[in-house]
Amino acid sequence: MERIYLDHAGTTPAHPKVIAAMKPFFREKFGNPASMHSFGQEAAQAASEARESVAKLLEAAAPEEIVFTSGGTESDNTAVMGTFFAKQKKGNHIITSAIEHHAVLHTCHFLEKQGLAQVTCLPVDSTGLVDPEDVKKAITDKTILVTIMHANNEIGTIEPIAEIGAICRQRGIAFHTDAVQTVGHMPISVQKMNIDMLSLSAHKFYGPKGVGALYVRKGTRISPLLHGGGQEGGRRSSTLNVSGIVGLGEAARQAQLEMESEARRQTEMRDSLLNGLSAAIPELIRTGHPAQRLPNNASICIRYVEGESMLLNLDLQGIAASSGSACTSGSLEASHVLLAIGIPHEVAHGSLRFTFGRDNKPSEVQRVLEVLPPIVERLRAMSPLAQRK
Amino acid sequence: MERIYLDHAGTTPAHPKVIAAMKPFFREKFGNPASMHSFGQEAAQAASEARESVAKLLEAAAPEEIVFTSGGTESDNTAVMGTFFAKQKKGNHIITSAIEHHAVLHTCHFLEKQGLAQVTCLPVDSTGLVDPEDVKKAITDKTILVTIMHANNEIGTIEPIAEIGAICRQRGIAFHTDAVQTVGHMPISVQKMNIDMLSLSAHKFYGPKGVGALYVRKGTRISPLLHGGGQEGGRRSSTLNVSGIVGLGEAARQAQLEMESEARRQTEMRDSLLNGLSAAIPELIRTGHPAQRLPNNASICIRYVEGESMLLNLDLQGIAASSGSACTSGSLEASHVLLAIGIPHEVAHGSLRFTFGRDNKPSEVQRVLEVLPPIVERLRAMSPLAQRK
Repeated sequence: MERIYLDHAGTTPAHPKVIAAMKPFFREKFGNPASMHSFGQEAAQAASEARESVAKLLEAAAPEEIVFTSGGTESDNTAVMGTFFAKQKKGNHIITSAIEHHAVLHTCHFLEKQGLAQVTCLPVDSTGLVDPEDVKKAITDKTILVTIMHANNEIGTIEPIAEIGAICRQRGIAFHTDAVQTVGHMPISVQKMNIDMLSLSAHKFYGPKGVGALYVRKGTRISPLLHGGGQEGGRRSSTLNVSGIVGLGEAARQAQLEMESEARRQTEMRDSLLNGLSAAIPELIRTGHPAQRLPNNASICIRYVEGESMLLNLDLQGIAASSGSACTSGSLEASHVLLAIGIPHEVAHGSLRFTFGRDNKPSEVQRVLEVLPPIVERLRAMSPLAQRK
Repeated sequence: MERIYLDHAGTTPAHPKVIAAMKPFFREKFGNPASMHSFGQEAAQAASEARESVAKLLEAAAPEEIVFTSGGTESDNTAVMGTFFAKQKKGNHIITSAIEHHAVLHTCHFLEKQGLAQVTCLPVDSTGLVDPEDVKKAITDKTILVTIMHANNEIGTIEPIAEIGAICRQRGIAFHTDAVQTVGHMPISVQKMNIDMLSLSAHKFYGPKGVGALYVRKGTRISPLLHGGGQEGGRRSSTLNVSGIVGLGEAARQAQLEMESEARRQTEMRDSLLNGLSAAIPELIRTGHPAQRLPNNASICIRYVEGESMLLNLDLQGIAASSGSACTSGSLEASHVLLAIGIPHEVAHGSLRFTFGRDNKPSEVQRVLEVLPPIVERLRAMSPLAQRK
C-alpha cells in the first residue's frame, strides 16, 4: 500500500543531504569540540560552520547569537526560565498567549505555581490572532518577557510578531518567539522583526531530531537552564551534539535553497485539499486564519465525528495525519488552541490536521479527497451525535 | 602520521553497530513516537526496545524507570533541580562532594545562590574517595538528596556508592549518582547498589552525542526540568530523539558483550603506560586511587610543566590526550578535582589524562612512552619553574 505522510508539523524525514553531512561525525570526526587536540578542533570547526548557517537563515547579526540546544522544547524552556532567573530583580511578569505550545505555557505555569512569576495569558480572536494592542495594554513595570509564537502548530495562524516585537523594543522588554513551525519554511529576519530570542527545532525542517537552537540577541541576558561545563558561552552546558548540529546547519542551508519554491508548491496542495474537503464534507469547519497561515497547514474540524477515529481509519488506508498536535495526541483533552479560538468542546474533538512537506505530490491530495469523505460518512452513520442533529 | 586517540573519557567514536542501528531512523522510519499513525508507532516501538536495553544494562526493575535526555549534563541537572522542586516542602538540603562534575556542582550552587537550597559539599581524601561516614554525619532532617558520582572523570577514582546508597536508603533520602564515566564500562546494578537516580551519557560508551538517560527508581518523585508536551511520562518533555535513542540502546547492548574483556585489556594498557611513564619521568605524581579506579584512566601530574604545553606537543605528534576534563579545558583555572585531593595549584597545572578505548592497541602505549618523556625534558629545559628547583 502506498503510504502518504501528511504530518510534517509533527516531524519531517531528514533531507538526504542532511544525512550525508552528518555521517562523518559519528565515527571519523567524532571529537569533543571542547578538547584542545586535533580531534576536538575538527569537530569545533564543523559546529562553528553550522552556527554560521543557522545565523544566516535567521539574518542574525552574529553566529555567537545562536545557542545550540536539544530542540524546540528546551529552547522554549530556556527562554522563559532563563529570562526569569536573569531578570527577577527587575520584575516577575511574563506575557504570553492562550495558544502557545505547551513548552512555553507549561513553563510559565510552573513558575507561576512556584509563586515565582506572574503570567498574563492573552486571548486570541476566532482566527487565532493575538492583537498587538493587547500586548501593549498588558505591559506593566514588572514585565520582563513577552513570548508569542510565530505560527501556531495546530491551526497554522501566523502571528503579527514584527509589530509585537516593535512594541517590546520600544518598552525595553525582551521578546521571545517560538518559531518552531516557521523556521526553514518562511523567511525570518530576527533583526527586521525585532526578535530578542527565537526557538527553532531541526526536525521540523528536514534536520535530525534531538537538536535545535535558541537565538539570543547580543545584550539579552539569560540564565542557563543547563548548568555544567560552560559550553555555548556559558548559556547551555553539555557536550555539543556535533552530528546533530552539523545536520541542523545543513538543513538551514537546504531551507534557504528550497523554502520559496516549496512554500508555493505546498500552498497549492493545501488549498486544493481544503477546497476539496469543504466541498465533499458537510459541516466541516476550517480553523485558523484564512490567509495569514502556514503554507503547509490544512486544519479543520468535522462535526459529529471523533478526530481519533478518523486518524485510525486514514492510517488503515496508509494516510498519516494528526488531530491536534503530535505532542498532545494520545491525550483525551480537547486542544487548548481550538478552545481558545472559540470552537466548542464537542467540535474540537473532531479536529484533523494535514501538513504538507517537500516529498508530497498533488496526486496525494486526490487520494485524501477520495478516502476521507467516505470515512466521515461511515463514522457519522454510527455516531449518536450525528443522529441527533 | 598515525593518530592515537587517548581521550575516551572526553568522548568516544560511535560503535559501527551503533551507526548501523541508527541509520534507518533519519529518513525511512522517521516518525514522531507521539503520533498515533503507523509512522509514529514504528518509531515508538524502536524507542521502547532501546529503553529495555538500557534498563537491562543497569539491572533496573522496569524499562519505564529510564527517562531519555539529551545527555549527562541534562540528566544531572534534572536529578538535582527535579528533586529540589518535587521535595522542597520536605526540606532543602542537598549533600554532594567536592569532586563532582560541574553539571552537578554548578546546579547545586545555582540553587544555593538563588537562596533556594542549602548545599553540603563533602571533602575527599588524597585518593579522591568520599567517606560514607561523612555522608551519614552530614544528613539532617532537611536532607532531600545525596548526589555522589560513581567514578570521577578526571582522576578515575571509583566511589563507594553501594555503601552510600545503603545509608540513604536507610534514612529514606533519594540517592543520585552521576555514572557518566562508568555506564558501559563497568557492571552496574541500580538495585544492588541502592541507587534511586543515575545519570548516563551515550557518547561516553560508543553511542552518539546528544542523548543520554536518567534512571529514576519507581516511586522516586522528580519535577521535570523540561516542561511541555508531556513525553517520557511527564518527566521530560520534548520530541524523542529516536535515532539517538536507538543508538544509545545499541551501545548498551554492545557494552554488555564487550565490557568485561575490554576492561581487562584496557587495565593492562593503563598500567603499562603508568608504570612506563613513572619510570621515565622524574617528579611524576599519579593521581586518583591506585586500585579503585576506572579501567581506562591513567591520570598524572608532571611537575614544572604546563599540561597545556604537553597537550599541544603531543597533538603535534598525533597523540590526543587531555588535561583536566574536556569540559573545562580551554579554561585557565586549575581543576577543582585536583585541588580537592590536595594537589598544590602549581602542580595541578601540569596534569595529564590518558583514557583508553576499544580501538586502542598496546603498541600505542609504546608510542606515548617514546614521545612524552622527551617532550617533558624539552619543556622543563625552557621552564623557569624547573630551573629553580
